[in-house]
Amino acid sequence: MKNIRGIVFDLYGTLYDVHSVAAACNAFHPGRGREISVVWRQKQLEYTWLRSLMGDYADFEQLTREALVFTSGQLQLSLDDAALSALCAEYLRIAPYPEVPAALARLQAIGLPLAILSNGSANSIRSVVTASGLEQRFAHLISADSVRIFKPHDKVYQLAEQQMHCDRSELLFVSSNAWDASGARHFGYPVCWINRIGNTFDELGQSPDHIVQGLDQLADWLQTRQPAA
Amino acid sequence: MKNIRGIVFDLYGTLYDVHSVAAACNAFHPGRGREISVVWRQKQLEYTWLRSLMGDYADFEQLTREALVFTSGQLQLSLDDAALSALCAEYLRIAPYPEVPAALARLQAIGLPLAILSNGSANSIRSVVTASGLEQRFAHLISADSVRIFKPHDKVYQLAEQQMHCDRSELLFVSSNAWDASGARHFGYPVCWINRIGNTFDELGQSPDHIVQGLDQLADWLQTRQPAA
Repeated sequence: MKNIRGIVFDLYGTLYDVHSVAAACNAFHPGRGREISVVWRQKQLEYTWLRSLMGDYADFEQLTREALVFTSGQLQLSLDDAALSALCAEYLRIAPYPEVPAALARLQAIGLPLAILSNGSANSIRSVVTASGLEQRFAHLISADSVRIFKPHDKVYQLAEQQMHCDRSELLFVSSNAWDASGARHFGYPVCWINRIGNTFDELGQSPDHIVQGLDQLADWLQTRQPAA
Repeated sequence: MKNIRGIVFDLYGTLYDVHSVAAACNAFHPGRGREISVVWRQKQLEYTWLRSLMGDYADFEQLTREALVFTSGQLQLSLDDAALSALCAEYLRIAPYPEVPAALARLQAIGLPLAILSNGSANSIRSVVTASGLEQRFAHLISADSVRIFKPHDKVYQLAEQQMHCDRSELLFVSSNAWDASGARHFGYPVCWINRIGNTFDELGQSPDHIVQGLDQLADWLQTRQPAA
């Protein structure tokens, strides 16, 4: 790996815990919050991939709502429009993983520009980052929306390279989603996979360059590699 | 819907039951066969979509094996190479759903050419159809392999239209996979969704033209529409 000149983070599932919406789901269907958020997240991912392949793009907020409509039908939840809207609003204020705020501060102190590259709409990304009070950490918030296709398509990964004026080999891409880490690696970024819960890496012909169990471990590693600016 | 001049079937999960491999999985890990086959199938699908989006095509047999390697790791099965090969061989002889052989005979008697359009490799499709003794039913076995991308990309759906020398509006596309039915509908085929087990249709901006609970019901419906040749 060359010297790193910037760090690009995935948002959903990497810096922020998508299953923090389970608490709000639980308020509508006590005892079923986690079950709902798991199906919802799985369908949300599938719809990003399927719509991209079909050539029928719609933005992340629309797909998030459509995935919840499916989930409501499949799990027989009978969520009405108000409930759907309330739960989708929760997706705009999901919580960062516990170690993330302090680790981002340490990474920023190293002097590297930090960016988010997400399938979320520009509004989704801004809302989530602002709701958690972390907007000062990031030099760039980059949405797939401008290229109207989702990760793991190359067009999305290319956005970070372009906006950060770096070669892909100089940007460290960080994701907890193995499929996303694989896509970024295939595109040409050096990749760090955050594996918080002992998952198995996907078999997509790629391997991460570095594996950590949390963002604090990434800060530890980079502080030994490049001392604070 | 115009007069129908041919029928195009999806294979995996539509005519043939992918979970018929659960019995073989069970022989390696008693009591866990269904759990294994569910994760394996889900990953197999994901890998077709993800590799297509990454622009890193590999054929269905390779992805099926890679999905099983992932499943073995995630479920801590420690399947060795021989076990992986034995289980992948099972995918080449999955069983048709019980009503399928008789219903295909009835559909063929109507006089419409029947085709399979599948993400499977040409070898996979031929093996499955031959193992079940149904090869005489089909005028065309069409694999996504020739265009090196998977459904629901338009390039795959286009293959049936081309090889059957019909306009897309004249071919009935039949799938149990709601994402596949959605892709075919978006491409322009009239679509019949086989919903055997009370699933919810995916929210991908499309609706099936016709819904049945089994292939026998499709034969019933078409026999009333167009009398036997």
